[in-house]
Amino acid sequence: MALSAEMTGPRYTKLVQTLSASVPFVGPEEQERSRGAPFLARLGANENVFGPSPKAIAAMQSEAGDIWKYGDPTSHDLRHALAAHLGVGIENIVVGEGIDALLGYLVRLLVEPGDMVVTSEGAYPTFNYHVAGFGGTLHKVPYAADREDLEALCAKAAQVRAKLVYLANPDNPMGTWHQGSKVAEMLDRLPKGCLLLLDEAYIEFAPDGTAPEINVEDPRVIRMRTFSKAYGMAGARVGYAFGAAELIASFDKIRNHFGMNRAAQAGALAALQDHDWLAQTQENVAIARQQITRIAHENGLHALPSATNFVAVDCGHDGDFARQVLHALVDKGVFVRMPFVAPQDRCIRVSCGRPEDLSVVAQHLPASLTDARRQQTARGKLT
Amino acid sequence: MALSAEMTGPRYTKLVQTLSASVPFVGPEEQERSRGAPFLARLGANENVFGPSPKAIAAMQSEAGDIWKYGDPTSHDLRHALAAHLGVGIENIVVGEGIDALLGYLVRLLVEPGDMVVTSEGAYPTFNYHVAGFGGTLHKVPYAADREDLEALCAKAAQVRAKLVYLANPDNPMGTWHQGSKVAEMLDRLPKGCLLLLDEAYIEFAPDGTAPEINVEDPRVIRMRTFSKAYGMAGARVGYAFGAAELIASFDKIRNHFGMNRAAQAGALAALQDHDWLAQTQENVAIARQQITRIAHENGLHALPSATNFVAVDCGHDGDFARQVLHALVDKGVFVRMPFVAPQDRCIRVSCGRPEDLSVVAQHLPASLTDARRQQTARGKLT
Repeated sequence: MALSAEMTGPRYTKLVQTLSASVPFVGPEEQERSRGAPFLARLGANENVFGPSPKAIAAMQSEAGDIWKYGDPTSHDLRHALAAHLGVGIENIVVGEGIDALLGYLVRLLVEPGDMVVTSEGAYPTFNYHVAGFGGTLHKVPYAADREDLEALCAKAAQVRAKLVYLANPDNPMGTWHQGSKVAEMLDRLPKGCLLLLDEAYIEFAPDGTAPEINVEDPRVIRMRTFSKAYGMAGARVGYAFGAAELIASFDKIRNHFGMNRAAQAGALAALQDHDWLAQTQENVAIARQQITRIAHENGLHALPSATNFVAVDCGHDGDFARQVLHALVDKGVFVRMPFVAPQDRCIRVSCGRPEDLSVVAQHLPASLTDARRQQTARGKLT
Repeated sequence: MALSAEMTGPRYTKLVQTLSASVPFVGPEEQERSRGAPFLARLGANENVFGPSPKAIAAMQSEAGDIWKYGDPTSHDLRHALAAHLGVGIENIVVGEGIDALLGYLVRLLVEPGDMVVTSEGAYPTFNYHVAGFGGTLHKVPYAADREDLEALCAKAAQVRAKLVYLANPDNPMGTWHQGSKVAEMLDRLPKGCLLLLDEAYIEFAPDGTAPEINVEDPRVIRMRTFSKAYGMAGARVGYAFGAAELIASFDKIRNHFGMNRAAQAGALAALQDHDWLAQTQENVAIARQQITRIAHENGLHALPSATNFVAVDCGHDGDFARQVLHALVDKGVFVRMPFVAPQDRCIRVSCGRPEDLSVVAQHLPASLTDARRQQTARGKLT
């Protein structure tokens, strides 16, 4: 059948017509295709190079033969185990296709055009993507000393009567953190009817006391965690949110009930039960943070303290300079990323890797800094 | 921290406040937990009991060790292979977390409160769930002779100025189908600016000529297919949509870019390339359809012709009777489902299984019919 001008296309919603097809992140595979070669070290997406528990791998492999069955839409067994892990009820937990999907569901539950949402300038862009995607208005407050500014978040929320406030603790992309008690105190300072979305994707890497003690039925907060980071299963897409049963139940109004990969459910269950592997990962990550810090020092750079599986390395100048360093590293085969916004964009962000991954960084960072300095000098920015 | 009445909960959107937490389907695992025993045969969700290609299983198992990496957000390799398979451009294809997720994305792109959508009374409830979830108004037309009524769909779409019309070809839950040429002809009869959503989840089981020949850049239609049925990977969550590049690109405005399971991407790629396994599955399914038809005949029942991997078995009376038969089968350990709406609900729907699965059906159907007749007689409905 030939096409003709008579054939008109679909009518998008008013909101969709205003959206651009902006992708929050370009994946490393696409960068590899662009550069025509694989990366030598994959340290840009805060993936856990130490990988999942062998028991999780075995569980996923074992489930592959049963992949003809849909996953349990209630994720019953995984939620049961998570409830025991967290000391809450199964009705307090919803499992979803990674925190990214859960962020989308939560925003959809609360945000319609005209609603106010508060986050930090330079915080997780996928959250912003979902807020824009549902027509919310984002208000951003600056970081204070490279940490998300709890006071400023509360003040802005009160000022704009926000429905939702985003806080990642520990923070991405800086790796900084607040004591849990400080986060808990926020709840009393938020305006009525404002929900705190506490993204704890990196909580397993943080010092004791970073996770706040909050009654799970407190209706003012929802917390999200993931198997993508400490459990090494980013590609499996398993995240969970926990909070008041009424709020958790509301996800059932809109979520993709049959959205979970069956092998991923089995893998997450096995991963959660392998405490030894998690402890070993935490140790590996702590060692890698020290190694990244040492590499930074050897190159005359400052590394920020981190409660995550990555380290923000301050390149000592402005964002343009750090971007030059980053581009040089990527050109040389080191996949890293960096904060989007000043003044945090003076840093590059290096995910924790194995010794062989970090030796690639150590090998290529000096020349990358030299490249960046040369280009800055050529532009007259450095003397 | 103690809870107090001062602590108020979040403010949901106006739309969400109107939604009920209705789940389109109860999963078989939940039914098994309720009945306290596993099913003897799992034939209710049109899963493909013959399973995925061994090459797909091997690909997923091999990828399990790399599951610490996020999947490629562009699904580049899979879309490339699908483009070759369909004879279209990679820009004409979007991959998503099963057709269910793609349905949700498409509805979100087009439907806002007040918009009109047309489907058939008793067609796929998950589509209806998404339309309700975005505030659309659903108009339903009856089936005609157990087939979706193309004329009525077009007439209703014109009458209500629909933005979107849903058609599954072959149909679920009846297994009936239309020639592709009839579907292609619909496009000229739909009102301007109305998109036909053609769900071809079961197309690989259908006779030649069921898939319409439509220019992929025709802006009036989008087609969806899946690895859940013929490729035996329901639990992996891989579906795809193909259509005009502009419409396909619009998914990038709202979709969960990093939502795909990495092992599932690899498995789908391997499955697509194993033509022999697909052919064997098609043969197994054709044999199973004959077996289900024979079992129906042996019990004095009529089985509808099917172009899918399931068969609707007409129980010969009304919906109450068929529900009794269904409940009796489920009680005896046979997981089957049935259409929701009269007059299609005179049938039960049996998915194609292996000989050992269908022998369970053959074993328990006679007593289930006897049970149902006894109960109907007790209620005075049968003489």
